[in-house]
Amino acid sequence: MISVAEATRRILDAMRPTATETVGLSSGWGRVLAGPVGARLDQPPADVSAMDGYALRAGDAGPWTVIGHAPAGHPFEGVVGPNEAVRLFTGSIIPRGADAIAIQEDVDRQGDRITLREAPQSGRHIRPHGGDFARGDLLLSPGTRLTARAIGLAAAANHPWLTVFRRPRIAILATGDEIALPGDPVRPGGIVSSNAHALAALVTAAGAEPVVLPIAADDLASVAATADQVGGVDLLATTGGASVGEHDLVQQGLAERGFVADFWKIAMRPGKPLIFGHLGNVPVLGLPGNPVSALVCGILFLVPAIKRMAGERDTRLPVSRGTLTVPLGANDQRADYLRAALAVGASGELLVTPAPRQDSSHLQVLARSDALALRPPHAAPAAAGDEIDLIRLDQGLF
Amino acid sequence: MISVAEATRRILDAMRPTATETVGLSSGWGRVLAGPVGARLDQPPADVSAMDGYALRAGDAGPWTVIGHAPAGHPFEGVVGPNEAVRLFTGSIIPRGADAIAIQEDVDRQGDRITLREAPQSGRHIRPHGGDFARGDLLLSPGTRLTARAIGLAAAANHPWLTVFRRPRIAILATGDEIALPGDPVRPGGIVSSNAHALAALVTAAGAEPVVLPIAADDLASVAATADQVGGVDLLATTGGASVGEHDLVQQGLAERGFVADFWKIAMRPGKPLIFGHLGNVPVLGLPGNPVSALVCGILFLVPAIKRMAGERDTRLPVSRGTLTVPLGANDQRADYLRAALAVGASGELLVTPAPRQDSSHLQVLARSDALALRPPHAAPAAAGDEIDLIRLDQGLF
Repeated sequence: MISVAEATRRILDAMRPTATETVGLSSGWGRVLAGPVGARLDQPPADVSAMDGYALRAGDAGPWTVIGHAPAGHPFEGVVGPNEAVRLFTGSIIPRGADAIAIQEDVDRQGDRITLREAPQSGRHIRPHGGDFARGDLLLSPGTRLTARAIGLAAAANHPWLTVFRRPRIAILATGDEIALPGDPVRPGGIVSSNAHALAALVTAAGAEPVVLPIAADDLASVAATADQVGGVDLLATTGGASVGEHDLVQQGLAERGFVADFWKIAMRPGKPLIFGHLGNVPVLGLPGNPVSALVCGILFLVPAIKRMAGERDTRLPVSRGTLTVPLGANDQRADYLRAALAVGASGELLVTPAPRQDSSHLQVLARSDALALRPPHAAPAAAGDEIDLIRLDQGLF
Repeated sequence: MISVAEATRRILDAMRPTATETVGLSSGWGRVLAGPVGARLDQPPADVSAMDGYALRAGDAGPWTVIGHAPAGHPFEGVVGPNEAVRLFTGSIIPRGADAIAIQEDVDRQGDRITLREAPQSGRHIRPHGGDFARGDLLLSPGTRLTARAIGLAAAANHPWLTVFRRPRIAILATGDEIALPGDPVRPGGIVSSNAHALAALVTAAGAEPVVLPIAADDLASVAATADQVGGVDLLATTGGASVGEHDLVQQGLAERGFVADFWKIAMRPGKPLIFGHLGNVPVLGLPGNPVSALVCGILFLVPAIKRMAGERDTRLPVSRGTLTVPLGANDQRADYLRAALAVGASGELLVTPAPRQDSSHLQVLARSDALALRPPHAAPAAAGDEIDLIRLDQGLF
């Protein structure tokens, strides 16, 4: 058996970033930058006011005569002289000659004449030229997944277009004579297929494009025919047919078409068996067939693989910390990913309660869980109140 | 001034859920359920094996004769009698007569004859009929935002279609003579518009559909014309033109077309002024014009409003906890949303370092931040090592 970390490392090492494309700024959200975004201008473009008020000279005694009016976008073209002031607003460019802002709450105005209740200070309430960024500054690095804030920054830096990695396209193959698509006739003893569509949603959540292949029957020819379906695909994920019994179909079936496979037993629960290999240039990740195992392995292995293919700098799953509400026994040699509920404790800490049933076929328990609580191999018994690492499921719509 | 909580309450009270639509299961990810999803069948549909092995009777002495073979989806039709066994696999239906599974690692097989190295226990390695869910069980409630796991559960429960709330459609209006779209000519003293596209991305991140309106000039007629653009829109968000100066355009402009407004000063930093009201049936949320204020107010007020309109049960923003790395002074009467970096400490705790510059025009600082650190009104000075509440920005692509 190999560790989760070792399996992750081997999978990530085999991933190559997708090619790139140009998208409009308004389509950039959630995409991963393939090139740097630099500032194409200075922001602000000049010294500007941070408040509504009057631009004047800090040293003057006053009263001041208002000689102009400069809303944002309409700079005052003249020069501010002794005891002169220009009305302006947040974002207005400071006129030449002025070095201070009298904010309007401190001003009494009679016609064109103002007096101040508080002496202005030179430079105060002035946002300096280039204070946010200056032309040529590197604002966003390649490998950044674009948030709403990053889109705003790219816009402010005057980028109508962005160069991003293409969304990885992930084919998903479910195998099994016993499974039928939802709404289709189910044969006696059969069940409704859930893995393919759950994994497709997970692929979408990770920012990639799913392609759900038709279900393959439990025979080698059906599985082998999958090889004709992977043109233009960046990775093939299979589910089921990966156990060590007679029905280890995925490896044997794809082997007829040149699949070179590693088969790993991974020291984890749920989901021990994992296939990894290549069909031509296409990486193949063979996930377990139990619904809980398939999704947990999808989160642990497929999501980081997608991040790597998508060019994302950081492929790690965020790990949080919480406090156990119940004791846990010692763990065996397999890392345990316990389905758990979260609550917020009296002092704001995350309280972690593992579900009493941890059967890898219980999809309902997984669907209701807020987190996977991590028990490392050979973990000592834990007491209520001990801290525990978490992969949160209640964020990112996994 | 009113509190953030009071403003949120008033905004949420005015939101109505959108109408509903039917979408295919494979389009359901990220949508919000408008009706319950119940189980249309039992899962598993019968007692099934949790392992690869042999079904037999726990009380028999053996050796056993293998009388059949039952892969998943191909149930054995006969009855298992004394000292008889049926070969089966994970997911296979337990044949009548059998009450135990001998797992294959414990079995020696010679032709059709097997002996066991370990005595099987009745019921062990058998997943009982309906153990995950039973026909009629409520699996997913209205108001649930659909994760990959929930999609899997709906599939397993045999739902090809889902009834969801329509995605709210949010019109976004930026105002200002000084702003130009990225790549368009910028007039002297002008800046490039970032708020509309940043807010559009935020709307997308929140699961709604943005409609970016053309920029309105700084005159009442331009703003008033917006009223012709809000047909079929669920909410109009504006940015800029909301200060208390002469350029308080949004209220006055829209008032010409029947806008009924509240103007609130909110006890928060960044982003004090907020307009809320209705233009006919369409709620209008007037956000500040400073880029940081617009986005922070968008996260605090627009995102929960979208969640409420989208029918989501829980509209609260998740609040986490971290540990300050630096001291903070006492706070004044305004709640402070400090842009902060996060790191993971030696014992797994989140370390929170507020950015040294908290200017509400510094978009680059916001774009690089991992969280907003929350300082309540009148907070006492805080020391390094004190805990602080956080709204994480590094999840959900806000």
